[in-house]
Amino acid sequence: MPTAAPSRSRPLGTALDSALAALAERFGRRFTTSAAVREQHAHTLTWIAPQPPDAVVFPHSTEEVAEIVRICARWGVPVIPYGVGSSLEGHVNAPFGGVSLSTEEMTDVVEVHAEDLDVTVQAGVTRKRLNEHLRDTGLFFPIDPGADASIGGMAATRASGTNAVRYGTMKENVLGLTAVLASGEIVRTGGRARKSASGYDLTRLLVGSEGTLGVITEVTLRLHGLPEAVAAGVCPFPSVASACDATIATIQSGLPVARIELIDEVQIRACNAYSKLSLAEVPTLFVEFHGSDASVREQSPRFAEIAAENGGGPFEWATKAEDRSRLWQARHDSFWAAGAMRPGTRLVVTDVCVPISALARCLGETQADIAASGLISPIVGHVGDGNFHCQLLIDLGDASEVERCKAFVARLVERALAFGGACSGEHGVGQAKMGYLEAEHGAVALETMRAIKRALDPDNIMNPGKIVVP
Amino acid sequence: MPTAAPSRSRPLGTALDSALAALAERFGRRFTTSAAVREQHAHTLTWIAPQPPDAVVFPHSTEEVAEIVRICARWGVPVIPYGVGSSLEGHVNAPFGGVSLSTEEMTDVVEVHAEDLDVTVQAGVTRKRLNEHLRDTGLFFPIDPGADASIGGMAATRASGTNAVRYGTMKENVLGLTAVLASGEIVRTGGRARKSASGYDLTRLLVGSEGTLGVITEVTLRLHGLPEAVAAGVCPFPSVASACDATIATIQSGLPVARIELIDEVQIRACNAYSKLSLAEVPTLFVEFHGSDASVREQSPRFAEIAAENGGGPFEWATKAEDRSRLWQARHDSFWAAGAMRPGTRLVVTDVCVPISALARCLGETQADIAASGLISPIVGHVGDGNFHCQLLIDLGDASEVERCKAFVARLVERALAFGGACSGEHGVGQAKMGYLEAEHGAVALETMRAIKRALDPDNIMNPGKIVVP
Repeated sequence: MPTAAPSRSRPLGTALDSALAALAERFGRRFTTSAAVREQHAHTLTWIAPQPPDAVVFPHSTEEVAEIVRICARWGVPVIPYGVGSSLEGHVNAPFGGVSLSTEEMTDVVEVHAEDLDVTVQAGVTRKRLNEHLRDTGLFFPIDPGADASIGGMAATRASGTNAVRYGTMKENVLGLTAVLASGEIVRTGGRARKSASGYDLTRLLVGSEGTLGVITEVTLRLHGLPEAVAAGVCPFPSVASACDATIATIQSGLPVARIELIDEVQIRACNAYSKLSLAEVPTLFVEFHGSDASVREQSPRFAEIAAENGGGPFEWATKAEDRSRLWQARHDSFWAAGAMRPGTRLVVTDVCVPISALARCLGETQADIAASGLISPIVGHVGDGNFHCQLLIDLGDASEVERCKAFVARLVERALAFGGACSGEHGVGQAKMGYLEAEHGAVALETMRAIKRALDPDNIMNPGKIVVP
Repeated sequence: MPTAAPSRSRPLGTALDSALAALAERFGRRFTTSAAVREQHAHTLTWIAPQPPDAVVFPHSTEEVAEIVRICARWGVPVIPYGVGSSLEGHVNAPFGGVSLSTEEMTDVVEVHAEDLDVTVQAGVTRKRLNEHLRDTGLFFPIDPGADASIGGMAATRASGTNAVRYGTMKENVLGLTAVLASGEIVRTGGRARKSASGYDLTRLLVGSEGTLGVITEVTLRLHGLPEAVAAGVCPFPSVASACDATIATIQSGLPVARIELIDEVQIRACNAYSKLSLAEVPTLFVEFHGSDASVREQSPRFAEIAAENGGGPFEWATKAEDRSRLWQARHDSFWAAGAMRPGTRLVVTDVCVPISALARCLGETQADIAASGLISPIVGHVGDGNFHCQLLIDLGDASEVERCKAFVARLVERALAFGGACSGEHGVGQAKMGYLEAEHGAVALETMRAIKRALDPDNIMNPGKIVVP
């Protein structure tokens, strides 16, 4: 993997000491330099070694975040935002030291506007907590990246997940943000109107900026009405290619599928073992339909026809919640099932995204590459979007295996880019994918990103060492 | 209306002469300084006086656009991108002179990827031409701002229109762009993958930047499958408030309406006169449903129920194309019908957008304001998004009427902002709404926009005098 040159050095000890002393004085028990807490805030969930911050601070409000950033800015100390630590590409590491700014105690649901289908939350609210809060409104927030991530983190990494094919990603579902810039100033972007054509889209600039342009402190989200009816189903296919063809045909037909997930034969095997199931060990699509009772009863047989035309079936589907849970259990357990395949190893999950017409070839070549590399990696995919994840099981104590893993990821990204895809569909860049941005976007686009970073964070204190080296 | 200070002066005559001479030599007959052509390229469709450019040039490719920008950059001459001139807020004016860069001859559909539901077009392709080109694919590009605008212009102004409530705006439907930056370098943003979490969202930064950060030369768009069935209907209401309540209930119910348009009683009167119709002269909703045959037959009666619960009806609907056209004729003709209300005047169309819960109040206060101001302004609204347009008929020869119009627009914007809305839902900022950005976004956001403008266009040559004064 290409590596980026360091963009800055650690702040001098005296400057760091001054900043930490000021933070300690201001935040008391909500500031810590405890090794355990610092290490917990540098857990990268990948092969990259943890790089703990010098301290962790737990603000309660946008204004407190602004105070922290102003103190750090004064002394040139890096600020690394932290949500729940579920990001997957080394986003929370502190390669130049600095202060981990945790939003774990910023958990207020600020305002629900049920009539406008929007909500404003503090960055630390998790998606599950938000949906619990909304339970009596008939509304829900659909973005589901798997982990119970914080909304701030999901916005910062442009997260999506299983039902992006129907409801979009964070890009489409964030109406507005409050963020603290490198200067310590508070910026409000977007608003509660559904549409705006007034000025540069600062909301979309901050969504996916991974804390490198500002710390997101509040998020206004679009909500959706809970569907009147839900149908879920499972359909085995003879090959990854036929499952992909059925997916393309489904999308092209305009069938408004809410989720369409591929689990490859390796992952099915893992799920059978972990969840005591007896699914056929072949590539399998898991689908879900949302709509009126009549429409989901119309959509399910239409999907069954499309599946059959592409060699798949039988398609088993259900509308009752308990039956749906049973059918989807393999998908729900897939992360844990993968992890259980090889105890004692790190589950390194990485993703790419390609145009769906290239998905079958990209997946086929990737499966062959996994086999040839002697790695173990079940695959799950949000295939309606052309997005899939390799769940690599890596022995971090085996340096040559780690190197093979890195080389595999490099080839995976190259392959996705050759098919016109993106080096990450939903996990983001973090530290692990910085080296691919130029290949994907070109030198001019990368330099444009750098120019924006320099303009908004001239001293490079905002999560330095992530996305771009200014 | 607040006005912004000038951000630059005209280039010195010698520099301008040098740039024009270089362009004339390079582009021959595709370069002109003819007064008639220059004036045509400065038509603002508002009260703002035309400010013609010094020359107009007609490139054929991204590389030619880059050559033009490099020549202009060398001599510090402004570049004003021009599509078909249908923008409504003074976007194409040249307040500091310079070169109008017309994309009128950049009309290639570059690549259609039917299997991926995407297309790449040159910026000058209009939306109608694109849909003609797509006719045999079963796909269409849904964004419909009314005018047969160029795709480049629609991207640059973050356009939307009648069916944004179902299909989103240009923000959601542009997958990637090619643009020429102020340096003359060519940048490619985004790509053909459905999702990406890789780096700053330069696509969304350019969408809506109105030519102030770069000239958009090619656009990759998301396409949608032509619906199997379409139903369209018309429903009168006793008041604007009851029509808005029915709209809110429709959106909240999750009914996937494709279009939901309000025409107020003044506009209905104009349509009856212009199109020889006999509609009840009351606020009226025009709706359209897209889906399977069964689903549109389910949706229409559900809407009729919601309308009746809110005092509206009878709801007349049809699925055959000719019947749908007849029902929707008033909506289709509304722009021309408004213009015919007061011959010899300028139709000044301006828009705002508010959270839908505030729409009834905002519309009611606006109608009262129109009456109190002695102005004539029918209203049409994309009410599913909370977005509406005042179609003001203004005698541009009457200075006091023009002043009353400006004062009305200022109050309209203030009102929308007070309800948590945006100063423009889909027309953009141009020259006419620059003065409102600080009130809407705050000083920090505006300064952030300025910092981005300075970083990407340090000499302020890209459409200067629009959106922000760097």
